[in-house]
Amino acid sequence: MSPVTAHFTALDVHDVRFPTSDSLDGSDAMNPNPDYSAAYTVLRTDAGDSLEGQALAFTTGPGNDLQIRAIEGLADWVVGRSVEQVLSDMGAFSKELIHEPHLRWLGPEKGVVHMAAGAVINAAWDLRAKRAGQPLWQHLALLEPEELVSLVDFRYLTDALTRGEALEILEGMKATRAEREERLLKEGYPAYTTTPGWLGYSDDKLDRLAREAVEQGFTMIKLKVGADVADDVRRMKVARAAVGDGIRIAVDANQRWDVGPAIDWMRALAPHDPYWIEEPTSPDDLLGHAVIRRAIHPIKVATGEHVANRVVFKQLLQADAVDIVQVDAARVAGVNENLAILLLAARHGIPVCPHAGGVGLGEMVQHLSMFDYVAVSGTWEDRVIEHVDHLHEHFVTPVRLERGRYRAPLAPGGSGEMLAASVAQHRYPDGPVWTARRS
Amino acid sequence: MSPVTAHFTALDVHDVRFPTSDSLDGSDAMNPNPDYSAAYTVLRTDAGDSLEGQALAFTTGPGNDLQIRAIEGLADWVVGRSVEQVLSDMGAFSKELIHEPHLRWLGPEKGVVHMAAGAVINAAWDLRAKRAGQPLWQHLALLEPEELVSLVDFRYLTDALTRGEALEILEGMKATRAEREERLLKEGYPAYTTTPGWLGYSDDKLDRLAREAVEQGFTMIKLKVGADVADDVRRMKVARAAVGDGIRIAVDANQRWDVGPAIDWMRALAPHDPYWIEEPTSPDDLLGHAVIRRAIHPIKVATGEHVANRVVFKQLLQADAVDIVQVDAARVAGVNENLAILLLAARHGIPVCPHAGGVGLGEMVQHLSMFDYVAVSGTWEDRVIEHVDHLHEHFVTPVRLERGRYRAPLAPGGSGEMLAASVAQHRYPDGPVWTARRS
Repeated sequence: MSPVTAHFTALDVHDVRFPTSDSLDGSDAMNPNPDYSAAYTVLRTDAGDSLEGQALAFTTGPGNDLQIRAIEGLADWVVGRSVEQVLSDMGAFSKELIHEPHLRWLGPEKGVVHMAAGAVINAAWDLRAKRAGQPLWQHLALLEPEELVSLVDFRYLTDALTRGEALEILEGMKATRAEREERLLKEGYPAYTTTPGWLGYSDDKLDRLAREAVEQGFTMIKLKVGADVADDVRRMKVARAAVGDGIRIAVDANQRWDVGPAIDWMRALAPHDPYWIEEPTSPDDLLGHAVIRRAIHPIKVATGEHVANRVVFKQLLQADAVDIVQVDAARVAGVNENLAILLLAARHGIPVCPHAGGVGLGEMVQHLSMFDYVAVSGTWEDRVIEHVDHLHEHFVTPVRLERGRYRAPLAPGGSGEMLAASVAQHRYPDGPVWTARRS
Repeated sequence: MSPVTAHFTALDVHDVRFPTSDSLDGSDAMNPNPDYSAAYTVLRTDAGDSLEGQALAFTTGPGNDLQIRAIEGLADWVVGRSVEQVLSDMGAFSKELIHEPHLRWLGPEKGVVHMAAGAVINAAWDLRAKRAGQPLWQHLALLEPEELVSLVDFRYLTDALTRGEALEILEGMKATRAEREERLLKEGYPAYTTTPGWLGYSDDKLDRLAREAVEQGFTMIKLKVGADVADDVRRMKVARAAVGDGIRIAVDANQRWDVGPAIDWMRALAPHDPYWIEEPTSPDDLLGHAVIRRAIHPIKVATGEHVANRVVFKQLLQADAVDIVQVDAARVAGVNENLAILLLAARHGIPVCPHAGGVGLGEMVQHLSMFDYVAVSGTWEDRVIEHVDHLHEHFVTPVRLERGRYRAPLAPGGSGEMLAASVAQHRYPDGPVWTARRS
C-alpha cells in the first residue's frame, strides 16, 4: 500500500568501474590510463510505484570513492523529504543543494561537491520524468516557459542573461515546439564519433575506424591530439585520407597546452583542415581560449566538459572565447545548471555540442540537446552530440544511433539507469570483474 | 636508531572542529553559521628526529569529513617514499600530486582534491623547514632564485609569466634580501583586523571593537557587508565615526552580489570611503570583477580566498580585474602554487594581502607575505595581512601581533602545528567539546 504522501527513503551510491585502461579506449594526452567509472546514484522512495531516480557522476577510476562519499554526504538533504514537494520545485531544490554554505565552502560550485549535487539533481529529474511517463527531453520540452525559468539559478548571470531575457527566448520557441518534436522523432539528432581517434590507437586502426565511421553515416569524426606534434600531423593525414574532404575532423587536446603552444600546434595541423580544436588549454583559462581563437581562425575553438559551472560558461561567451559550447551531463550541477548554460548559449547564438564519452554520458546528455532543439535554440544547424561506441550495453535504455544520428529516446526518464547485472559485475572492488583480475 | 634513509611512514588526518557558530564569530553574508574546522594533516617519518610535518585544510564544519577523506586518499603518493627525495625536489612532488590524471579529473585543480594536495604539500614544507631549523618564510627567502623557480608549475602560465621572467624578478631582489629580513625582524609586517566587523555583531560591539582596534595600532579594519544595504550604510557610519578619517575601512561581501547590485551597493557605501570591496561576486567571475572595478573606482577591488588556482589568478591580473590579490594558505595547492601567485602579482605590480580568518590560516599565510617582502615583491607598501583575533591559542606557535603588525615567526616550520590537547578536545564527533554539547 502506498502512503498518502511519498517520501525519499534512500540515496544509494554504487562504485561501478570498467577496466577500460586495458584496451586504451578513452586514452588521451592527459588521461593515459582511465578506468571509466560511475558514482552511480539511486534515489528511492516509499511511493510504492517501483520507480527510482537514477543518474551518475563520471570519473576515471581512482577517486571514484571520493566522489561517492561526496554524493552520500547529500543524503541528509534528500532522505525523508516529500517526493512531491521536491520534484514540484526543482529550482528551489537545486539552489538549496548548491548554496548550502558549508558545502559551498568546498567549491564554491566546482569539483567534487558540485558534481555530487549534479548527480542528485539528475537522479531527481530522472524520477520526475519517469513519474510523468515521459523521456526527459520531452518532459522538459513540454514545460511552460515560466516553469523553465523558475528552474534556473540566475545568481551571477544577470549581467549576461536576465530572467526576462531567458523567458523571451523560451516564449519565442514555444509556438513551433511541436513541429520540431515531430521532426526530431522522425530524423534523429546529428551525431559525431570519437571512436576512431583515441591516442593509443595505431594508424591502421585509425584508418579503418575512420572509414567505418563514414560508412555508418557520420559526417564528423574526432581525433585526440597533443602528445607529439609530428604524430598528430601524421594521424591527421591518415584520417583525412580515410574520410575525404567532405567530412569534418575535429581534434581534441584535453587541456594539454599553454596558449602559445596551442597556437603553434594548430597551425601545424591547419593544412589538413581541422574543424574545431577542443580543450586546447586549461578549462579555467577563458582569456587564453579567446587569444587562441583569434589566432587560429577559421579553425573553431570548443570547450566545456571540464568547465566548472555556469559562471565560467558565461564568461567564455562574454569574452568571445569559444565557437562551440560543450555541455556535460555530469560535470555541473545537473539539468538545472545545464538549462542555464543552454540559455546562455542561445542568447549568444553559439551552438551547443555535448561531451558524451565516458560511461553513460551520452545516454544522459542526449536529452539536453534534444530539449535544446525543441524548446531553446530551435535548431540543430552545426550542432552534433558526441558518440563513443563503448559501454552502452550496460544501460537499460542505451543510446540508439542510426545513420550518424541519435534516435530520440522514448522510454520514460533520463536514460541513466544501469542494468543491475552490470552494476553487480563491475562493483569496485568486490565485483567479479575486479576480483577476477586480482586472482 | 634512525635509518640511513628516512621514509614517510604515515599521513594522519584529524577532524578538528570549533563551535564558532555559537558566538557568530566568523558570520558573514554567505556563511551565517560556520563552525571553523580543520582537516588537520600530519606527515610522519621514521627519521627518528621526532619531527613531523603539520598543516591543515580549512572548512566551515559539515564537509570537513569529505576534505579529510580527500587528503587521506593521497597517502599512497607519500607513504613509503624517501623523505630526502621528496623534500629535495618539492617542485616535482607538487606537480605529481596536482597532475595525477585520475585526481585531476575531479577538479581539475580545484575544490576538495586541490585543497587536499595543498594540505599535503604544506605539511611537507613544514617538515622541510623544521629539518632546516628555520621558520618557513626565512627558509624560502634563503633559497637561490634558480631553486625557487624550480618549485613553480608554469603550466598554463607562460602567456603571462615565463620561467625567465620569474627568475628575473627573484634575481632582482636577491642583493637586498638581507636588509629587508633585518627590517622585518625589527618592525614586523603590517596587519589589519577583521575582528570588529562580523555581520552578526551589534552596532555597539562594532563601535567598541573598532575603537579598540585603533588603540591597538591597526591602521585598517574590515567590515562584513552584503546582507542589507541600509544596515551596511549604518554600520559603515558607525565604524567611520569610531575610527576617524585616517584609518582605512575595507568591506567584504563574501560573493553575495551579481555585477550590477555590487556596483549599486558600493555606490551607496562610497560616501563613507571604503578602501576596498572584497569578494563582491563569484570568485570565478573575473570579467565581472573587472566591470565592477571600473565602475566603482577609486574604491579598490580585492579577491582570492576562494580563487581556485593560479590560472584564475593569472586572468584576474590579465583582465585588470583586481587591485589586490588575496592569497590563502590552504585553498590552492600549497606553498608552490602560492609562490606562482606571488610571482604573477609581482610581475603585474599588484599588492598581495592574504586572507587569514578561519583557523590557522594566519599562522600559515604570514610566512608567504614575509617571504614575498624579503624575496619577491620587496615591499610592504599597501600590503597588509588580515588578522582575526580567535582560535590562535590552539597553535604551538601562534601569530604574534604588536602595534598592528605581525612579528616574524622565529620557530622552525610553517606554524600550522596545533596543540595536542586542542586536537584531542575538539576532535569531531568524539572529542569532549562535542560530546558535552550532545549530552
